[in-house]
Formats: sequence, C-alpha cells, structure tokens
Amino acid sequence: MLLMEKTVRDLSEDELLASFLPLLPRGRNTEVPTGDDAAVIAAPDGRYVVTTDVLVEDRHFRRHWGSAEDVGWRAAAQNLADVAAMGAVPTSLVISLVLPPQTPVAWVQGFARGLAQLCEPVGVGVDGGDLSSGAQIVAAVTAHGTLQGRAPVLRSTARPGDVLAHAGVLGHAAAGYALLNEAGDTGPETEAVLADLGVEAATATMFRRVFLRPDPPLQAGPAAAMAGASAMMDVSDGLLRDAGRLARASRSLIDLSSAALAPAVTALEPVSVPLGLSALDWVLSGGEDHGLLATFPPGTAVPPPFRPLGTVSAAGSGGHAHGAVLLDGTTPDVARPGWDHFAG
Amino acid sequence: MLLMEKTVRDLSEDELLASFLPLLPRGRNTEVPTGDDAAVIAAPDGRYVVTTDVLVEDRHFRRHWGSAEDVGWRAAAQNLADVAAMGAVPTSLVISLVLPPQTPVAWVQGFARGLAQLCEPVGVGVDGGDLSSGAQIVAAVTAHGTLQGRAPVLRSTARPGDVLAHAGVLGHAAAGYALLNEAGDTGPETEAVLADLGVEAATATMFRRVFLRPDPPLQAGPAAAMAGASAMMDVSDGLLRDAGRLARASRSLIDLSSAALAPAVTALEPVSVPLGLSALDWVLSGGEDHGLLATFPPGTAVPPPFRPLGTVSAAGSGGHAHGAVLLDGTTPDVARPGWDHFAG
Repeated sequence: MLLMEKTVRDLSEDELLASFLPLLPRGRNTEVPTGDDAAVIAAPDGRYVVTTDVLVEDRHFRRHWGSAEDVGWRAAAQNLADVAAMGAVPTSLVISLVLPPQTPVAWVQGFARGLAQLCEPVGVGVDGGDLSSGAQIVAAVTAHGTLQGRAPVLRSTARPGDVLAHAGVLGHAAAGYALLNEAGDTGPETEAVLADLGVEAATATMFRRVFLRPDPPLQAGPAAAMAGASAMMDVSDGLLRDAGRLARASRSLIDLSSAALAPAVTALEPVSVPLGLSALDWVLSGGEDHGLLATFPPGTAVPPPFRPLGTVSAAGSGGHAHGAVLLDGTTPDVARPGWDHFAG
Repeated sequence: MLLMEKTVRDLSEDELLASFLPLLPRGRNTEVPTGDDAAVIAAPDGRYVVTTDVLVEDRHFRRHWGSAEDVGWRAAAQNLADVAAMGAVPTSLVISLVLPPQTPVAWVQGFARGLAQLCEPVGVGVDGGDLSSGAQIVAAVTAHGTLQGRAPVLRSTARPGDVLAHAGVLGHAAAGYALLNEAGDTGPETEAVLADLGVEAATATMFRRVFLRPDPPLQAGPAAAMAGASAMMDVSDGLLRDAGRLARASRSLIDLSSAALAPAVTALEPVSVPLGLSALDWVLSGGEDHGLLATFPPGTAVPPPFRPLGTVSAAGSGGHAHGAVLLDGTTPDVARPGWDHFAG
C-alpha cells in the first residue's frame, strides 16, 4: 500500500510524524525548533503576542467542501489575523491536531502543505505540536508575534471623533458559505446548480475561496500601528458584532456610513441577487472574512489598504448606550448580528 | 434554572465566558491580558519557550473517572512539565476548548478552577482561549515559559559517562489507571471491588490521584539547569520510551540500574500484587507520570529531588545501536514499551 493510500491508523505515531514534519514551514525567529519538549522562539523586544483559535470539523469546515490544504491555510490564517490585529508581525505557530483513526495520511500531509503555503512566505514557523486520535478533526492553533518595539493596539482605546476604517473584504466568506451550502464545492452537479441560479462559475469560485482560504491583510496590522491607529481588531464574527465589541471596550458608539459600505454591497450582488439574499446583511453580519477594523485619530492619513467606513462617537449620542453600532445614525435592521458558537 | 444546572447550549457565548473567566488564574508576566485579539506576555531575556498538548475525552480522560477540576489541572500540568523539561519557569497558558452542547456549565467552571489550582500558586496565567462546540471535549493547551537568561536544556546533548537521574514518580499513573479500569472512581461499588482485590482504599486513592492530577516537579527543571544538566526531558510516554528518545537524540545508549529502580518497584507492589500485574512493567512503561529525566556530567552533585537511575554510554557498547535503553546491561523484557496514539 502506498503511503498516500494509508490512514493514520496504519502508521505508528513516529511514522505519521515523519510523513508530514518535513512539509511544515520553518520560522525566522525559531531558536530551538520542534522536536524537543518545547521550542525556543526569539522575542527581541522583550515580549510577544499570543492568541489561539480552534477549527472543528463539521462546525468550521467540511472535508468535502475543500482540500486539506484549505483547512491548513485557514487554521493558520485566522490566528495570524489576530496577531496582525494587535499591530504585530506573526512569527510562530504551534498546533494540536486531533484526527479520527480513519483520516487519510494524505489529508494530514495536505493540511501541513496548506500551513506552509500561508506561513512560509511570511517567515512564520510551525514550532511545535501534538497529535491525538478523536471523534472528529480538531485543529487548535496558537500563534505568536512580535510588536517590534511598538505598543500593542488594543480594542479599548478608540476615542470619539476617530475615523473607523477597514482593510480586507466584507461578506465575501458569507457569500462563499452560502454558495457551498446551496451548490456544493466543484464538479458537474455544482456547475448545473450555479447555472440554474444564474451565478457565474468564476464568481462562485472567488467567493468560495475567501471562505475556504481567507487571506487576512497581515501587513495592514503593523501599517495601522505605525500610522497611529488608536484601536484595532480582527473581524471574524461579522462587522456589526465585532464593531460592537470595539465600541463596548472603548465605551463609545460606532456609526457606519451606508455610502462607505456601498462598494462592499455592490461587490456581493452577483451572488446575493441570484440567491435572493441580502448583500447588506452579509456585509454587516457575515463572519470569517478576517479583515481588520481600526480607528484613527481625526486628521490621520488612513494608510492603505484601509478604507474609512464610519466614525466613533461618544456614548449617549442620540440616546444610544456605549457599544451600539449604528448605520447612518440609526440601529440597523438585520436578521442576525453575527453568529454564536453554542446558542441557536 | 440555576446557572449550575445549565448546559453550555443554554447560554450565549458571552454568558458562557462570563461564567468562568473570573475563575481563571492571572499571570505574573502578563502585560495585556485575555480579552483583546491577542495577549501580550513579557519575555525579559528576549526569548520564550513554547509547547502544546491536547487532552481528548474518552482518549485521555473519562468524565466519570474524576472531576472537571482534575481535567483542568491535568491539561495544565502536562504542558507545564514540558516547559520545566527545558529548564524554564512556566509563565503563561492559552487554551482552546471544544465542548459538546450538552456539557454542564458547572463542568466548564470546574475545569477553570482546576487550571487555577495548579497555575495560580506558580504565577502562571491563562492569557487567551477559544471556545467551540464539537462531538467530544477537547482541551488543547499551549504553555510558555522563561529561561531566565539560561540556555535551554535539550534532549540531544547527553554525553557518554553522564549520570541519568529522575525527579518525580514512576508508574504511579499507570497503577492509578489500572485501578480506575478495574474498580472505577469512588463510591460503595468501588470500595467493594477494592476490598475483594485486597487493595487498601487510601492506597488506591493515592495512585488514582497521580493519574487524574499528575504533579510534575516543576521547580526541578530550572534546578537541574542550574546544576549543569547536560540533557533533560519530560517522561510522559513511559521511562523506556522516553529514555530511548533522549538516547536517540543524543546518539548514545542508556543503561538503567535495577537496583536504582527497586524503590520505585516496591512502591507499586501494594497495587500490582493484588492485581496480578508487574510493578516493573509499570515503572518501565507506564506513561503520564510527568516526571523529569535529566543527565548530569560525571562528578556533578545531582540536585534533589533527582535520584540517579543509570548511566549514559557510547553507542556501540555491547553491540547496541544508539537509542537503545538497557536494564543492567541487557535489553529489558517488557510487553509493551509505552503507548502509541493511533497504532494498536
């Protein structure tokens, strides 16, 4: 039997490790690499940022929707976005991977390749990990980064009068998710469903790709910090929900401008119109895009790729308590403001 | 319904977080705590050690065997042992927790309390986390530590002539695991089974506790480094297997002394004799004790609580290739040298 045809149950743990360790990316900040009880990572400015995120099969991804490479990419991307959202440059990951015994070895190798595709070009290493068997695939990634001597950019430090700006895409992953739900991944059946709906195949591919392989604007995080951003966060649970968190942490309000959101809405219409869904709902509530939301003091030149989306106001303006997110001054009317992991 | 009676499905994610975040330990090295996209941790000597380990329900623990506090304690302990095994002092954890929707909120709170019971006294904080629903409980912990300016102690740097020493217990977790399998946790039925077997209840409790709440000798790691240890590692998969890894990484042999192991064997006999099992097998192959195995150059005063167990020899001695672990100069006769996560 070829290695590619085996499942993880067919190998010893050492054989399984040997099948994918050479595929993992090496980091520029790694002093002692994986293989000992712990790795040693450089922290030249005397501190590091750390964040963790978990992907669960059938909750965050379905194996038949995309490749193992997609899942590896996405597991890293959502964590590196959190590092960038502090204004830091990502340096290092560690990963705990739970695998059902019948998982193909080829899937594990693909997962490692997907990690490397995202991480290697930005100098991030996989510097540790653990393997276990379990009922479903679980990939728990912890990411680290360096602030390069800068202060971290928090969520809690936006000030009334600041400009709210965003880098990355909005609602693309939601559109891709809707397409995967509606028409599946690829193949003749999917093509037929898309043709019936009137969604172009190339358009469908683009949006599905954002859901399967989100591409956070990693360099925009440090760029925002250097430009003087007053607050920043990753948008993973939807614009309204995450802007609300920033507003609440900063004890202020956020007012979004529908004119500023219009290009994002228009970009989604080639999917939302055929599916009979609301592009504005996706822009406001769609999660998993992993763009960055930052605030800049008035008069700051907002650094590209950030684009202004609204303003920060004082709590109490218009009778709204801190934490409120408004659209053109009023409470936006959306069905479902982001999603919750446990509740309905 | 009281919060204690609810399941995680009954709460929003924010409510669930609010139910246990106040129970988590705060760290002495935390500059920006959990609550932002990432935490910021001090690394005063310009680097940090990092390691990750995952616990999976029904694979590493059973909920009815012990309390949620036990699982939280153990999730932290196995990671802190890896940090100590580099000669480092643990500073900070992050945790991804996957929970079935029907998990009691009280279980999650207990898990947080167990983390705090181990971490708070040693100044380790929980500085980030992620929650998801899933088919079984998975707790993926990443731990960090500081070397305080010392060089890390690796596995690969033992030298022929060095003394091999161990700190902690050997085979106690295996004995505890055997007791749990044979007689369950606590209660009248367990008492009856133990009485039939002829195992004293207090003895059973002590060994079960090592399995449920391993207590790694955390201070022994930095103490070994300061005393000049040439190599070190955590014993998580059994003495033979882990000593073999150290020997292989160091391209040498290890020769254990049965006389030096005798006290460890004797300590297990109150359980092994009634169960008709081999105490020596437990000492040589039992995992999950999380003691530390270190080597010291000849003439070094081995620092307590380390006790000499054998010596490091040159590969080729007696015709054995590097990586071999001998007992009194010959290959030990055990059924099963440690355990494998996927293979049988």
